[in-house]
Amino acid sequence: MRRSELFIKTRKQAPADEESRNAQLLIRAGYIHKEMAGVYSYLPLGKIVIDKISQIVREEMNRIGGNEVLMSTLQNKELWEASGRWDDKVVDNWFKSKLANGADVGIGLTHEEPLVNALKAFVSSYKDLPIYPYQIQTKFRNELRAKSGLLRGREFLMKDLYSFSRSSAEHDKFYDETAPKAYMEVYGRLGLGDITYRTFASGGYFSKYSMEFQTLSDVGEDTIYLDRKKNLAVNKEVYTDEVLADLGLSKNELEEVKAVEVGNIFPLGSKYSDILDLYFTDKKGQRQSIIMGSYGIGISRLMGLLAEHFADDKGLVWPSAVAPYDVYLCRLGDEADVKKAADDTYKQLESDGISVLYDDRGDRPGEQFADADLLGLPWRAVVSSNSLKAGGAELKKRGSEEVKIVPTKSIKETLGKPT
Amino acid sequence: MRRSELFIKTRKQAPADEESRNAQLLIRAGYIHKEMAGVYSYLPLGKIVIDKISQIVREEMNRIGGNEVLMSTLQNKELWEASGRWDDKVVDNWFKSKLANGADVGIGLTHEEPLVNALKAFVSSYKDLPIYPYQIQTKFRNELRAKSGLLRGREFLMKDLYSFSRSSAEHDKFYDETAPKAYMEVYGRLGLGDITYRTFASGGYFSKYSMEFQTLSDVGEDTIYLDRKKNLAVNKEVYTDEVLADLGLSKNELEEVKAVEVGNIFPLGSKYSDILDLYFTDKKGQRQSIIMGSYGIGISRLMGLLAEHFADDKGLVWPSAVAPYDVYLCRLGDEADVKKAADDTYKQLESDGISVLYDDRGDRPGEQFADADLLGLPWRAVVSSNSLKAGGAELKKRGSEEVKIVPTKSIKETLGKPT
Repeated sequence: MRRSELFIKTRKQAPADEESRNAQLLIRAGYIHKEMAGVYSYLPLGKIVIDKISQIVREEMNRIGGNEVLMSTLQNKELWEASGRWDDKVVDNWFKSKLANGADVGIGLTHEEPLVNALKAFVSSYKDLPIYPYQIQTKFRNELRAKSGLLRGREFLMKDLYSFSRSSAEHDKFYDETAPKAYMEVYGRLGLGDITYRTFASGGYFSKYSMEFQTLSDVGEDTIYLDRKKNLAVNKEVYTDEVLADLGLSKNELEEVKAVEVGNIFPLGSKYSDILDLYFTDKKGQRQSIIMGSYGIGISRLMGLLAEHFADDKGLVWPSAVAPYDVYLCRLGDEADVKKAADDTYKQLESDGISVLYDDRGDRPGEQFADADLLGLPWRAVVSSNSLKAGGAELKKRGSEEVKIVPTKSIKETLGKPT
Repeated sequence: MRRSELFIKTRKQAPADEESRNAQLLIRAGYIHKEMAGVYSYLPLGKIVIDKISQIVREEMNRIGGNEVLMSTLQNKELWEASGRWDDKVVDNWFKSKLANGADVGIGLTHEEPLVNALKAFVSSYKDLPIYPYQIQTKFRNELRAKSGLLRGREFLMKDLYSFSRSSAEHDKFYDETAPKAYMEVYGRLGLGDITYRTFASGGYFSKYSMEFQTLSDVGEDTIYLDRKKNLAVNKEVYTDEVLADLGLSKNELEEVKAVEVGNIFPLGSKYSDILDLYFTDKKGQRQSIIMGSYGIGISRLMGLLAEHFADDKGLVWPSAVAPYDVYLCRLGDEADVKKAADDTYKQLESDGISVLYDDRGDRPGEQFADADLLGLPWRAVVSSNSLKAGGAELKKRGSEEVKIVPTKSIKETLGKPT
């Protein structure tokens, strides 16, 4: 993509009302726009990043048998009254509105109730289970404070999967093994694998614990106690002697660290399925309860965390799996041979399947380099009369200071090399 | 995909409260679930269809220079007060809610105001224009009545593109030529090209006319007067002698027909850009107004129209461009050779890049055939001991009665043939 065909403009200063580093960087680099506290729009570069994160999550959910759906945002009050979750005293972060006829309507903050209700037409026999519907959908939660950029939104993109199992054993296998493995695959592909830990947290109404996935970060809202050897952590909210004993963890081995919750999974028992009358008939013809679990990953939160974690004082440093383009190609100079060489390089890389953001402005090398750094694409390639004299393009990996001249035809191989 | 791995279940009867044929069919076939009037969730098959329609629209918008963004649903009241569109007396189909601090917030029904506001950080010079941001995003409109299934939703998926031009000439070229051509490409790819017409409609505040794209359909809410020779129509709302004279149309050549509006484009002049203070500096250093246009396509409405239009008394008949799978593969019988042949056919087609929904239930041929018809995939393939004796699989195109035996290795070529 030629930069002139995309609306991109960088800023030296972050907006005064934006306190969080992730949103400051993403706004300065033109990835997002702040609509209000906790509400952001995704501009062209940001849309590509959020789509890439979504696609990684989608692939891992499909791999474990997930069926993608898209539930409505507008919520039928009756279903939530049935489960007792309509009342603002029970759930205190609803957005609500009214239909033109005066009836109350909710703005979706999670989807257990409507999904269970929809499945009544699809699940009746043991042959219909287990199933794992999921969606990547915009959620709305009326947070009183939202000062953490994409890390805590009033409007945010989330993957929510729900498991429907025929027995506790079937549930446990998915909950304890299949889903956590898929979650760690996601974090691994995003470059967060070695700083993300399974963490025991409070279990709510349905079980002793829920399981969180916590990524170490100084800006995390959570405090966890981490046993690096056992690769496990405990959230401060359940950090008691009793819990440690229960989990076989020892205080001496635990390290107190700040972390961002990048995923959580909850056992739900049969609360929602029972209340909303979703049962199955087993092989013997007996009616049985359906065991549920819910499995969330905050997609926009992950984008915020990646922006916060993979950054330096010059700007963003995207992992290549989610970078909006592979290469930031600078053309320095308007001479005919420089133009031709830069245009040719652009076309050749694109036809090689390498995505390029081509800064075709020609002038102001300082601005081009600063933008390349701020935007944080994995590679910068520079074509100038100097680079051509030296034998090709100047290639530099974002985050490294090493610059080397590479014949333009060999850029592809250089990019392919592990670094 | 094996049918047993996807939650699919068909129904003989449509739900009693669903009046529209498109939603009746889509619900019976398990593509969508009705949450309330005008609000539907997309189940696995429906999600694939809506994604395929979205992708066709996306490709055509990218081809004409569109930049994809994703604006927020939650709307800042102040921007809409500035344009005069916050008041329910002016815009009567808002959903509104409140932030936890008591401030009003809107639920997005269109995005001129927030997009113009966001662009203030990106547009200042003539070099920054023209630009064509667009999104494929869920819109909310508080319709009093919503009885047409996906054809008129309270919550619906829409593509909205906005053009920002430096002059009327630049605007006109995009509005009159580029965008309509891209729109007709979309309808052509969806199989609606020869029944969709550019239609003059009322222009609102900014111009004499707007342009609608109307697809002929008995269930259409619109009445248009169509000149088939000139390939043009006039919406009843502007069907006057004066307008006909203005457009060079003659009453004698016009046919009154029902139609569904599948797209509309509006010239917006500089109303929103001026009010929200978005200007550009021209080559001479003079401040100039920016000319805008808006260009909508109802993605979920198109899905409803396709379901309504491409259907017969047995069910849906999807155009292949949007069908969730290419082939419905039935296995009839549990004999080892039948199982092996059907499994092999499934694997072979999938590895050939043909997507297959594999009904691996084995029994009840009548049910399998009825489901194949109702789901409306372009082809049905049947593997049974009879078909194997006859030399392969029975292949039948949806909508045709012709059944022929094709060696399973030749299915791919048969599907590839124009029919």
